[in-house]
This record gives sequence, C-alpha cells and structure tokens, in this order.
Amino acid sequence: MNGSAIGYSLREIAERFGGEIVGDASVRVRCVATLESAGPGAISFLANERYLHQLRTTNAAALILAPAIREAVQKPRIITANPYLYFARVSALLNPPRRVQPGLDPDASVDPSACVDPAAEVGAYAVLGPGVQVGPGSVIEAFVSLGKNVHVGRDTHIHAVVSVYEECVIGDRVIVHSGAVIGADGFGIAFDGERWVKVPQVGRVRIGNDVEIGANTTIDRGALDDTVIEDGVKLDNQIQIAHNVRIGAHTAIAACTGIAGSVQIGRYCRIGGAVGIAGHVSIADHVEISGHTSITKSIDKPGAYSGVYPFATNRDWRRNAVHLRHLDEIARRLAVVEKALEDLKRERRGS
Amino acid sequence: MNGSAIGYSLREIAERFGGEIVGDASVRVRCVATLESAGPGAISFLANERYLHQLRTTNAAALILAPAIREAVQKPRIITANPYLYFARVSALLNPPRRVQPGLDPDASVDPSACVDPAAEVGAYAVLGPGVQVGPGSVIEAFVSLGKNVHVGRDTHIHAVVSVYEECVIGDRVIVHSGAVIGADGFGIAFDGERWVKVPQVGRVRIGNDVEIGANTTIDRGALDDTVIEDGVKLDNQIQIAHNVRIGAHTAIAACTGIAGSVQIGRYCRIGGAVGIAGHVSIADHVEISGHTSITKSIDKPGAYSGVYPFATNRDWRRNAVHLRHLDEIARRLAVVEKALEDLKRERRGS
Amino acid sequence: MNGSAIGYSLREIAERFGGEIVGDASVRVRCVATLESAGPGAISFLANERYLHQLRTTNAAALILAPAIREAVQKPRIITANPYLYFARVSALLNPPRRVQPGLDPDASVDPSACVDPAAEVGAYAVLGPGVQVGPGSVIEAFVSLGKNVHVGRDTHIHAVVSVYEECVIGDRVIVHSGAVIGADGFGIAFDGERWVKVPQVGRVRIGNDVEIGANTTIDRGALDDTVIEDGVKLDNQIQIAHNVRIGAHTAIAACTGIAGSVQIGRYCRIGGAVGIAGHVSIADHVEISGHTSITKSIDKPGAYSGVYPFATNRDWRRNAVHLRHLDEIARRLAVVEKALEDLKRERRGS
Repeated sequence: MNGSAIGYSLREIAERFGGEIVGDASVRVRCVATLESAGPGAISFLANERYLHQLRTTNAAALILAPAIREAVQKPRIITANPYLYFARVSALLNPPRRVQPGLDPDASVDPSACVDPAAEVGAYAVLGPGVQVGPGSVIEAFVSLGKNVHVGRDTHIHAVVSVYEECVIGDRVIVHSGAVIGADGFGIAFDGERWVKVPQVGRVRIGNDVEIGANTTIDRGALDDTVIEDGVKLDNQIQIAHNVRIGAHTAIAACTGIAGSVQIGRYCRIGGAVGIAGHVSIADHVEISGHTSITKSIDKPGAYSGVYPFATNRDWRRNAVHLRHLDEIARRLAVVEKALEDLKRERRGS
Repeated sequence: MNGSAIGYSLREIAERFGGEIVGDASVRVRCVATLESAGPGAISFLANERYLHQLRTTNAAALILAPAIREAVQKPRIITANPYLYFARVSALLNPPRRVQPGLDPDASVDPSACVDPAAEVGAYAVLGPGVQVGPGSVIEAFVSLGKNVHVGRDTHIHAVVSVYEECVIGDRVIVHSGAVIGADGFGIAFDGERWVKVPQVGRVRIGNDVEIGANTTIDRGALDDTVIEDGVKLDNQIQIAHNVRIGAHTAIAACTGIAGSVQIGRYCRIGGAVGIAGHVSIADHVEISGHTSITKSIDKPGAYSGVYPFATNRDWRRNAVHLRHLDEIARRLAVVEKALEDLKRERRGS
Repeated sequence: MNGSAIGYSLREIAERFGGEIVGDASVRVRCVATLESAGPGAISFLANERYLHQLRTTNAAALILAPAIREAVQKPRIITANPYLYFARVSALLNPPRRVQPGLDPDASVDPSACVDPAAEVGAYAVLGPGVQVGPGSVIEAFVSLGKNVHVGRDTHIHAVVSVYEECVIGDRVIVHSGAVIGADGFGIAFDGERWVKVPQVGRVRIGNDVEIGANTTIDRGALDDTVIEDGVKLDNQIQIAHNVRIGAHTAIAACTGIAGSVQIGRYCRIGGAVGIAGHVSIADHVEISGHTSITKSIDKPGAYSGVYPFATNRDWRRNAVHLRHLDEIARRLAVVEKALEDLKRERRGS
C-alpha cells in the first residue's frame, strides 16, 4: 500500500509544503521509508537523533532534515524546522487514502428511515438503525452497528467491527478504528444495601471533527449530560473514557489510559499510555502526563507530571520496596536522631 | 431517549418508592437531569456536595434531597436517605428500556438445533450455533456470535458485537455490552524447554443473574473447572478476567482492572479501576481496593486497601523517585547514625 | 466439551509421551480434571504444592506426578519431570480440536479475487476482501473481516469478531481470539503548532507461526516498516502492541500489558500482566518482568525485573506514601545528620 506510481519531484513537494531544497530538486520520490529500509525511490527523514548514524548508509533518494544537520549528508534534501511534521505531509501526499466507493452494499441492513448520503459508502453486513444519518464521503465498513438516530458527519471512516449506541453523534473527518465501542452505558450503579441498582444512562456521546479513535477504545455515554470529545482529539488504542468525561480540543492520549467518570481534561494536553485518572478530576490545558501515572486529584497548572515507580532487578526492587511499608517510621526515626543531635550539640556548647 | 411523554407526579413517585414529599406533590416530572442542565419538566438530585451551590440556580421542577439539606431549597422535593439510589429508581421509571420485539430477523443465522424462545428478539447478522438456547424476553443484537450450546437466560440483553464461545452459560436479566468476549481460551501454556505447548481450556464461563458486563471486557473460560461470575456482579469496561476466577455476588469492579488466573474474590467487594490482581490470590468479602493498586497477595480481612504511587510535577517526582533505588541504603545509614548516637550518648554519660 | 468417548489407557499415554507408569497401566482415562473435581474416568495432575492435600481425597482414576512426590498417593500414576507439561499433552490428546468443516458459508462475503483453499472453512458473515489468501485447514469464523491482500497461513483459527486490516500477514497454526484487531493504524501524529497531523501508517503486521493472540488484543501496523510478532509468541487478552514493535520468538506476555512504539523485545521473555513498556526501549532475551511494572529504559541483561508499589491498608498506605513526596528531603536531612555526627566525633577525638 506504500507509495504512488508516478511520484513527485522535490520541487513539486516544496511547492506544496515549503522548506528549502538542497541539491537536485528534480529528483523524484515515490514512497516514504525509514533510513534503514529506504530504496532508491524513497524519501526518508531524521527526527530522532538515535538514528543519526543511519544517514551515512541509507539508500534513500532524498531526505527531510532539520537545519542543524543540514550538511550531515550530501543527498538531495529538504531542510525544514520540523522534519517529522513535514514527513507526515509528504507521506500523506504519497499515500492518499483509498477512494470512497459510494453506495450501499446489498448485504448491508439499512433501516428505511435511515438517511445515507449517496456519496457515502456502506459495506457488507453493516447495520444502520432507524433515523441514522451518514454524511457524504463517509465510509461505514462491515460489522458496524449504528444504533437508532446515530449521526455520522462527512468524510468520516468507521472501520470494520465498531458499535455505536443510539443517539450518539460523530463529526466530520473522524476515524474510528476496529473494536471501538461508542456510547455503551456508563458504570452507574447505586447500592440499596443488598444489591446494585442500575442508573439509566440517558446522555449521549458527542464526538467533534477531526478526531481519531483507536482500536478497542471505549467511550461511554453520559449518565445524564453527554460525554464530549472535542475537535482534533487523538485517542490511541484500548483507552477507556467513562461517562460524562469531557476531553478538550487537540488533546492526544496514548494507549491503555483509563479516564474515570466526570473527568474534565483541557485542550492541548498530552497524556501517556496506561495513565489512570480518578473520577471528577479536572486537568488544565497544556498538561503532560507520563505513562503509567495515576492522577488522583486535579491539576490546575500546565506542566509535566509523573508518578511512576522505577523498576529494578527483582532483587534490588525487593530490597528497597520493603522499606515503603516503613517510610513513616524512617521519617520519625530521622526526626528523633535530629533532635538527639541537637540536644548533644546544645549540651556540648553548654559544657 | 431521556424521558417519558406523560410523566409522573411527585405523589405517584413517592407512592412507588417512598420518601417524604415537601411542597407541591402534584408537580409532574417527565425526565431526569443534572442540576445544571435541568429544564422545567425535570427532576434532579444532589448526591455530591461539590454541586451544592447549583441548588440555588437549577431550573429543575423538583428535587431529590437528603434529610440534612432538606431546607436548602424551597422547590418541591422528595426527602430520602439515599438520594442517588432514589434517583436511580426514578430514572428507571422515566426511562423504561426499549420494548423487546420478539422474533428472528431474516438475516440472523440460527442453527436448526438452536432453541430460541418465541418471546426473544434476535437481530440481523446474529449467529447462533447448534444447541444454543435463548430465554424469553432476551435480546440478541447484530454481530453477536453464540457458540455451540451457549445458554442465555430470560430478559437478558446482549448488545451488538459480542462473542460468546461454546458451552458458556449466561443467566437472567444480564446485560452484556458491545465488544465483550466471554469464554475465550484462558492463557494456559506449558514450556517444554524450547517452545510453549497449549493447555486446552476445557472449562466454561458461568455468569449468574443480574450481572452487567461492560464494553470490551473479556472473561476467559476455565482451564478445567469453570470461571464463575456470581449473581449481581457489576463489571465496567475493559476488564480482564482470567481462567478459573470466581467473583462473589454483588461485587462491583471499575474499568481496566485485570484479574489473573484462579483468583477468588469475595462478595460485596468494590474494586477500583486499573487494579491488577495476581494469580491464585484470595480476597475476602467486603474488601475495597483503590484504583491503580497492584494486589500481590491474599487479603483476609474486609477493609480498604491501596497502593498507588503519588504523582507530582515531573521535576519533584524525579528528585524524589531517584531515592527509591536507595531506600535500603537510607535505612541502613539511618541505623548506623542511630547506633553512633547511642554510642556518643553512652560515652558522654560515661565521661 | 471435555473428554474423549473411548479414552486411553495409561500404557497408551506413556507410549506417546513417555514417563514412568507406577501401578495399573491398563487403567483407562477419558477426560482431564482438577484433583478436586475429578470423577472416576479422569486423570489429574499436581503442579502447584498448595494443592498437595487434595491428593488424598481426589477421585481421579490416575495421576501425573513429579518424581519428588512419587509415593504421595497409591493410585495409578505417571511420573514425569514436568507434570504440567505432560498434562498439557494428555489434555490435548483427550480434547482434540473441533474438526474443520471445509467450505464457504453461503452467507460469507468473499471477494472474487480472494483465494481460499478448498480445505479451509469460512463461516457465515465473514468478509474477505480482494486478494485475500487463506491456507488449507484454516478456520475463519463469523464477523471476521480480512482486509485487502491479507494472507492467512494453514491450520490457523480466527475466532468470531476479528478485524485484520489490509496487507497483514498471519502464519500457520496461529490462533486469534475474538475481539482482536490486527493492523489498525499506529498512533502516529505530528503537531503543527495548532493541530495534530496524521502520519500515514504504511507498514504491515507480520505474525509468524504458532502464535496465539488473546481476546481484544490490538497489534498496530507499522508506520513505515512492519510490526513483527515472531514464531511461537503467546499473547494473552487485552494486550496493546504499538507500531513497529518486534517481539522475539517464544516470548509470552500476560494480559493487559501495553507496549509502546518501536519497542524490541527479545526471545523467550516472560512478561507479566499490566506491564507498560515505554517507546523505543530494547529488552534482551530471557528477561522476566513482574506484573504491573513500568519499563522506562532498555534492559540489556537476562534476569527478573520488578517495579511494583506494594499495597497496604488504606491507612498504612496513606501514612507511608506521604513521605514519597519528601524522599529527597529525607536523604538530605540524613546526610546532614551524618555530617554533624562526624563533626561531633572529630571534635570529641580532638577534645
């Protein structure tokens, strides 16, 4: 799937995306590749310094480089402040998405009251319930269930095997990967002293534009108000988003993170993998959280936050971790020692 | 989906569910809402003190309140010891579940030997294998696969996109959300010195009555005996339950928790999100475990347990965490200091 | 599903798998069972000493035991160095996999350009895209989507509800459980200062032979090069494997573990549940990692590694954990005390 038959010259690329060409601007590239695996028709890039040594041996036809290493290699190259971003654009140019094939597969099950734009594509064994709307340019693949009154915007792609519960709203240019579940009931239960009573979950999920939702990610519907994912949010795989969470625009969250109910996350946050965020917590804009951190109270200020227990060999870990159960005692013993020392010094001065 | 066309008066509600009405008992409510978003036909409640200030500004027609704040607002209200529980019941009254539409969709694939009660509903593109039984009032949605001899009780709802492997048993009034997988093979492998040999997983999964299973939760079949989820257990999304686990009745588990093989969990436990429980551990009844805690040995006594590493700014975390690799050394140095101090004191007394 | 109608004598079993028979070699066994639940036709085993007391009361017809406890019971028994491994083989003999039923279900949707071996089985509502290949003896169940050009080897079993994106390659004798997603886009995004730009993910996923993939596990396609799962790797449920990861042959990974992008894991590693491995980390062969550990840098040497925060009662945890925010201060205060003590001693010697 990688690449374009004709390719583009560096000149054509720079005309679209800017950057400074150094060397032969007429060189044509047809695909993108890593430095290590690039063949003669490929354009590659360097974003991570750990791969700097590969510049010398790469077979790439052309490179995308930062100004600081502009002369690190003599191949035709485009110099740009953010090579990774530039590369993303070149790769999108060389790997255009598959063209939408408008129409309903005869094996799709579409309720008569559903409204599918003629320019949308609905695959075999998709099920669209009553009142469903799908905008132009959108693709609904096999084994996608869109519940009653689900609205899907334009140019949105829902991959195979996705369940969207009734009344949920998905914006434009959204990508939903396989296994995602949108709008299942939030975990709302009340204890009557003997058993749990289910609290009906009557809110919806509303997903803005330009959102990407990873494989097997789950986003629960609100208990009363809606769960909201704002524009431009990017969610990796196996993320859990509980009821009534709101995630601010352009926040990116790595895989396996779990966000409990009613959490508010700001805009432009970057949240690592396997993070846990406790219920009702608020997180400011521009907050970064390291992977595997447990956020148990609100964060008011932008900045980077961590809480990872450092790993070690089993032996070292065991030797050290045992003291975690006695930190309070250590602190108290230290205070006693400090006090005794003070007494001794005072005594000494007095003597 | 929220609400009932006719609505109910407070009097009608209190006749069903008890509580004391203060103010106009004839006020009719048609839907439930949060304090903040309630309109004039809505009944709302206050369970979390952080929203107390919203009582003054809410547009709700009526409220459900605890005795302690009985006079906090002058609107018509129902006073009850547990407003959240009461609200759950009112919401269920105002939001009755969708009515079952009995019958098999012509696009369902049902083995001739399967036995589906005429009062059950089977949707398009459901696959029911040989010997499957489905009780009256149950709903099997699209893209549900029920393997050979799976038994589903009555009034159970299996949402779209669920896989239940052969021989598993699901009780009455169970809710299974999309993406759940019930009865996949447990992770049983034996090492022969060179490669892993698969241990056939010949047990089943047995799920009691009134259980709810969240989206993308996985419950593995037993290796030999069954994996058992007792009555009234509530499981949130993306929970992993390994082979031969037994979860006691009315235990509730939050999302992303992983429970390893042969774990026994008691009744009425409350387990937070992203908890990990190591294999073969036993947990007593009435145990509460904080989110993100790793349980590595058995818990014999009821009570609350935690083990979360506190987060901080990256800078503070880094400054402190580095010492975790040297706690043993710190403890030893402290002991040396204590000893030296004792010696000094003794010497001093002796001098 | 457990057992074989005719059964096998201990003699027949030992002829196949070795071991020493003690007692009546003509005893026939028809099924495997735990010590506790074994009936008179069952063979059982003891691998975990905590169940030793059950040897006295078991109703099993025969046992598989280690040499050390050869005389712990007088029943017919097979003595072998690794009873669990032996048992795995006996169980596979007594529980042969369901026989493949070759052919395409009339309700399968198979592209005319797909090539399915006549000895393969394709179930109802499977969707096989253009160019798909499926080898002999393989089973593709309901609600499996195989994207364009996906190759599936021979004797591979893909359970119901699995999505495999285009171009991915799956080897021979692979088992893929329900809910797995193979080849979804990796989480590749570049920030342009205002919004995230998607980086096309043009690599594939390549899965070797004899791999098992658990329920709801996700394996992302490579950004440029492929994500690779080598032969004999065993993956439990709800594992997340990001783009461009390589997992070495015969490594086993327990449930809920998340592996970030470009991680390299060696051969014969054993990784516990809910482990997190940060991006670009390398892990040597024969490394063991305890459950719930966060691996934040490379591991060069074989061995066992841990990093779990120990749990305690909520009260004890709270009392101790508060000091984690002051470890640096504790270390500094300790150093001050040590210095002061040295001074005092020196003074004293001087006086």
